[in-house]
Amino acid sequence: MICKGALSLTVDMVYPTFTKEIGKYSATVRDVHQQLESEYESVGWLYDPLENHAALLGRIEQVAQEIQLMADVLVVVGIGGSYLGAKAIQTALSPYFERATCSVIYIGHNLSAAYTEQLLRTLDGKRVYVNAISKSGTTFESAIAFRIVRQYMEKRYDDAASRIIVTTDAKTGRLKQLAEHHGYRQFTIPMTIGGRYSVLTPVGLLPLAVAGINITELMRGAKDATVALNEPRLAHNPAYHYAAMRHLLYKAGYRLELLATFEPSLTYFQQWWTQLFAESEGKGGQGLYPCGVQFPTDLHSIGQFIQDGSPVLFETVLHVNEVATDFAVPFDVMNLDRLNYVAERGLQELTTIAKNGVTAAHREANVPIIELQIARLDAYHIGYLCYFFMKACAMSALLLQVNPFDQPGVEAYKKKIQALLEKTTHHAASS
Amino acid sequence: MICKGALSLTVDMVYPTFTKEIGKYSATVRDVHQQLESEYESVGWLYDPLENHAALLGRIEQVAQEIQLMADVLVVVGIGGSYLGAKAIQTALSPYFERATCSVIYIGHNLSAAYTEQLLRTLDGKRVYVNAISKSGTTFESAIAFRIVRQYMEKRYDDAASRIIVTTDAKTGRLKQLAEHHGYRQFTIPMTIGGRYSVLTPVGLLPLAVAGINITELMRGAKDATVALNEPRLAHNPAYHYAAMRHLLYKAGYRLELLATFEPSLTYFQQWWTQLFAESEGKGGQGLYPCGVQFPTDLHSIGQFIQDGSPVLFETVLHVNEVATDFAVPFDVMNLDRLNYVAERGLQELTTIAKNGVTAAHREANVPIIELQIARLDAYHIGYLCYFFMKACAMSALLLQVNPFDQPGVEAYKKKIQALLEKTTHHAASS
Repeated sequence: MICKGALSLTVDMVYPTFTKEIGKYSATVRDVHQQLESEYESVGWLYDPLENHAALLGRIEQVAQEIQLMADVLVVVGIGGSYLGAKAIQTALSPYFERATCSVIYIGHNLSAAYTEQLLRTLDGKRVYVNAISKSGTTFESAIAFRIVRQYMEKRYDDAASRIIVTTDAKTGRLKQLAEHHGYRQFTIPMTIGGRYSVLTPVGLLPLAVAGINITELMRGAKDATVALNEPRLAHNPAYHYAAMRHLLYKAGYRLELLATFEPSLTYFQQWWTQLFAESEGKGGQGLYPCGVQFPTDLHSIGQFIQDGSPVLFETVLHVNEVATDFAVPFDVMNLDRLNYVAERGLQELTTIAKNGVTAAHREANVPIIELQIARLDAYHIGYLCYFFMKACAMSALLLQVNPFDQPGVEAYKKKIQALLEKTTHHAASS
Repeated sequence: MICKGALSLTVDMVYPTFTKEIGKYSATVRDVHQQLESEYESVGWLYDPLENHAALLGRIEQVAQEIQLMADVLVVVGIGGSYLGAKAIQTALSPYFERATCSVIYIGHNLSAAYTEQLLRTLDGKRVYVNAISKSGTTFESAIAFRIVRQYMEKRYDDAASRIIVTTDAKTGRLKQLAEHHGYRQFTIPMTIGGRYSVLTPVGLLPLAVAGINITELMRGAKDATVALNEPRLAHNPAYHYAAMRHLLYKAGYRLELLATFEPSLTYFQQWWTQLFAESEGKGGQGLYPCGVQFPTDLHSIGQFIQDGSPVLFETVLHVNEVATDFAVPFDVMNLDRLNYVAERGLQELTTIAKNGVTAAHREANVPIIELQIARLDAYHIGYLCYFFMKACAMSALLLQVNPFDQPGVEAYKKKIQALLEKTTHHAASS
């Protein structure tokens, strides 16, 4: 087990030889670590997850407080990296059923007519602010959504411009132009940080602050991780260890990594993780397909496949060790359901037992298991975890010898859609 | 393209040879069709998706109307097949933001202390009914949840028993015993229908009727599919064609099937589909790993992997052709976002163009594509689609020579958990 800072990593391999094999990567990992320090030094989040930390956080908090005071709903317009990070952390740290003082809802990540129409309808009678997020402003889905939301705001409010906040490039792009023209307030997406690595910038931080998440704690976790995980030695760096394990398993023929958790609130965090690894590594005919699974519900679904299906997958189990308040199973004098043997035990205690049972069963079925543990599900630990996965992802992609920071394949479908649109329109795309 | 009843299927293969190869399966498919008719004749849903159709639907509707009248919330207790089907169809056919007259919320599919505590808290002050669903009543997670919810109801209501409805086996099991002892009303899960195939029985139908879904239309769709898809000839049966294509692709080395859709409301339907195929086929070291993807949001996530990652996956695109009301992109005289070339065009029209662009891009990247189209997203078509996938799944599993109707691997983890629980407890499990 490797413990470092707020996280522990256990590699629980079915193949004892792997423990030996991983050692062989020490030199390569050290080389890639140096490559990160030299070639990718300019990558914004790697060494300083948030420039001008205190001043920027202060400004974000200030705008967030205004929104909480003046609005019932913040509509966040974004897709991909401009959407998933905030949604992931908001879902991870918000109550399941209670409504926040100011709801944060998302648009621009789909093209659904029903979703759009119903979202606008739900805004009527509520006080609304908007946060449009896009580096360029040219991403089709979110640009269309912003046009729709903008016109809605202009129809409803004389002071619409003061209720719209834009998070975009510092200098160029259509969204930047729009913001300048209308006088929207702006936050900057650092030029050196790509979409899927941008959750710890204003892209994620403004919506999160509005949702009531403690962004100072979030950044403190990330900052601690930046220091703890800058260790070049494989055996002392869980991020590198995780990356090397994934690489080893990929080389051994595995093609699918399941990120498993027992926390229902981590669903969108799993999607954020999916984007991070799929877009960073799925290149040149390579890469592990990343897929989130929710236990125990998915044990009654793809559990069968994990146990006995095609041997192409391994599991990374992300476990939270403590909860704020446990919930005890009640005693029942009748005991018709025969559950008194777990009476007065907490659900969290049962979850940990279930986790141990599941990993034992999967281990017997020869499924390799990597286990990650954090103490609590709070802003600090989620910030730590975001940085952990980002750093591990950079290492993992470079071990595959692909660029962790580009996404050429995403452009392919955009071009096709553009061509089809232009073929079926009277106006030119540039009109 | 094969059109049959409410559904059309296009197999858009990158390998022209596959079109020829699929023909070779005609005889095998006819044999398996006969095997289904003889060996599996007793499987409840195959030929008559709902026994005593009219009378049972009437009784379900009646209880649902009582719940809608008497309760603000229906708490459904279930996991796996006792949960996913209802959740899938409810999500597919309900508005995104509006609240229903009677909310349907789920418990028993996780062991989260926070979720449980917050769910109970949200019930306070609301009028509550409960529907506990389990064939045996021994499934650990949902049995614990039912104990918790039962005690909550008994503390709150003198007439708790009249507010609890149980859906379980006709004759045996702990849940049946509980229902008999307390005098709960009961619906029956037919003995011949397994969990993941049970959505079109009272398991799915009661929660759906309470959620305001037209279950008569749902069953009419399923019934029409039962007739249309009982065609033994491969070339005239899209369910068998889909099954044979999957099999061919599996044999060709693919290990991952993505079910892609542009409808955000189909997220849980994709999970239902995942359970259906993973539990039915993931046996004997075989099977395609099933995974849902949501376009366009996932195009900015795993889109990169689909386009250029490990060549282990193919796509099944489920497209909805029409929407009730389209939503037009507004015209903007300033046009700073340069989107006037799509002004006055509907989002649904753009979705169809996006679908065509995406499939074209993925085809060029050599990703095999199967396309399924339904006219509308309504109860009739969802009922049809459920039956389509269930029938295709039975065929597909039998082509792999595994039993579509058992799940031995799910039992493995249950036993491990049981053993760990007993090791750490003073009471015996049978106490």
